[in-house]
Amino acid sequence: MTEMMKRWVLARRPNGFPVAEDFRLEEVPLPEPGEGEILVACSHLSLDPYMRGRMDDVASYTAPQELDKTMGGGGAGVVIASRSDKFREGDLAFGMFGWASHGVAPADQCRKLDPALPPSTSLGVLGMPGFTAWSGLEAYGRMAEGETLAVAAATGPVGSMVGQLAQRRGLRAVGIAGGAEKCALLSERFGFDAAVDHRAHRSVPEMREALAAACPDGIDIYFENVGGPVLGGVLPNMNLHGRIIVCGMIAWYSGESDETGAIPLQKVWRMALVKRLTIQGLLQTDHVARFRDFAAEVTPLVKEGKIAYLEDVSDGLETMPAAFFSMLKGGNTGKQVVKV
Amino acid sequence: MTEMMKRWVLARRPNGFPVAEDFRLEEVPLPEPGEGEILVACSHLSLDPYMRGRMDDVASYTAPQELDKTMGGGGAGVVIASRSDKFREGDLAFGMFGWASHGVAPADQCRKLDPALPPSTSLGVLGMPGFTAWSGLEAYGRMAEGETLAVAAATGPVGSMVGQLAQRRGLRAVGIAGGAEKCALLSERFGFDAAVDHRAHRSVPEMREALAAACPDGIDIYFENVGGPVLGGVLPNMNLHGRIIVCGMIAWYSGESDETGAIPLQKVWRMALVKRLTIQGLLQTDHVARFRDFAAEVTPLVKEGKIAYLEDVSDGLETMPAAFFSMLKGGNTGKQVVKV
Repeated sequence: MTEMMKRWVLARRPNGFPVAEDFRLEEVPLPEPGEGEILVACSHLSLDPYMRGRMDDVASYTAPQELDKTMGGGGAGVVIASRSDKFREGDLAFGMFGWASHGVAPADQCRKLDPALPPSTSLGVLGMPGFTAWSGLEAYGRMAEGETLAVAAATGPVGSMVGQLAQRRGLRAVGIAGGAEKCALLSERFGFDAAVDHRAHRSVPEMREALAAACPDGIDIYFENVGGPVLGGVLPNMNLHGRIIVCGMIAWYSGESDETGAIPLQKVWRMALVKRLTIQGLLQTDHVARFRDFAAEVTPLVKEGKIAYLEDVSDGLETMPAAFFSMLKGGNTGKQVVKV
Repeated sequence: MTEMMKRWVLARRPNGFPVAEDFRLEEVPLPEPGEGEILVACSHLSLDPYMRGRMDDVASYTAPQELDKTMGGGGAGVVIASRSDKFREGDLAFGMFGWASHGVAPADQCRKLDPALPPSTSLGVLGMPGFTAWSGLEAYGRMAEGETLAVAAATGPVGSMVGQLAQRRGLRAVGIAGGAEKCALLSERFGFDAAVDHRAHRSVPEMREALAAACPDGIDIYFENVGGPVLGGVLPNMNLHGRIIVCGMIAWYSGESDETGAIPLQKVWRMALVKRLTIQGLLQTDHVARFRDFAAEVTPLVKEGKIAYLEDVSDGLETMPAAFFSMLKGGNTGKQVVKV
């Protein structure tokens, strides 16, 4: 009897916000690893906002997701067959196995995981999101002690790392998140210096005021994950020679027109000129050569509990699209993970 | 009999595009220099786009122009009285004398001019506009041989310098200017590699196409002087890791709503992310410590005719507002100067 595995494929391209019918769960034969490859039984799969962008058929920093193929994404699990010297059966591995119960990948594109840490950390705090935060600040932050950093989606795996790293470098970290519960987490769990609830300040002028109160010395670094009205409120609070690191814009991912967040480019251009801002697009893949430095610095901090992290675990592969929709709407609190 | 001088004051704040009634020509007593100051009879006065911004009562990188006070600006002329060791009568000086026939200024805020060069060069090619171009490219250009640079308002004193400096560093320089005559100058006088006429391509899609044709390898550096539809056409042509140096936005200075140039911020943010652009506001005053380096490099090149420049000279102090309006509309070709 052929052994089978399960996977989600993209059935059609979403029209705006994605819906259940855009995805299809399939049962397919378990693949065999080729020379230099490993076969992994995934225990934890990653859900990330960038995945929404790949569902559209437009040129971006990665090729679009192909229809009727396994949805792409990172996953972690146990090696159950290896045709590489790098891995043995029973090792833990991270790789781009997609939205699937099992996956095959070239061993040299996989990362061997430390069994002393939960495999899910390879998807968040010690994986791509954590590295995104670290590499963005390292490459473009020009952080200086006493400065103020603001970050939105701040309980998320990128935002929470950004705030904690900035604080370790002597900056004041202000987190923006949706709802009182998340804001409480920012202060209590992640130790942010201040928290701003964007659900309590939905318009640009309100957000501007709330941020002015939370950032009495202005904002030197804004780590941009969301776009929309939050960005509108941040801009007038930016300091001279401020840095805006554009890492994402979840508010704008599904092409919804968001009138409350409409900011004329002219206003931003004027702000960039008057305040001599640096606005810098960030993609972590530009910085992969420094992943080792990141891991060397942050892994011990996570083990010692000096860097906090939070995961939202959705149980079962079949919950994957629903967990994805929820994450796009800000329903998650920390790193969104699916337990297979 | 008291000796008199003439000056233009701002009579009221312009409402959109400025008009003659916003200014008033006055005759006032000639001032006497105080200790450490010089009195200069101006021969040439500068008109620059930044002056429009100062006429509004809003916080910017300089304080707003005060009403009923001499319109601010740079000027060059002969020292007619000196209470400083730095200048003698008969010396040529540049200083911030404003829109006026004469001016007094602290000697240490004035620059002594080389009598072998026309004094007007201190207002353009060897003055603030030339230094703006040089400092912007030096500080933020990250120029590499073989790359493509695009600049608008390219026959102007900033744009023409940007193109020529880029070429000297081995870049391909593409100039954007309004009208066939200016475009011919770009190729013939300034030696740009290609010229694009923005009057022949008024919409964003047309400008996009024209720039794609003129920049077959895309644009690595865009030196931004204009905003509007030109910017809209530039953005999709930017290369991965491109740099946009925001130096001005003349199309947007008078607060006119320009629907053909409306670009949603969301689109720019997406572009910044996907292409990992650097967008950097430039103000030359941040870089004044390097003015000497600029002068040391560029003065000999101007003397030897290796850097070309062009001046539009308007004759007579009374023509100053009209020349200013014309410049804001792109009526000038080179550096706009008023001969007193």
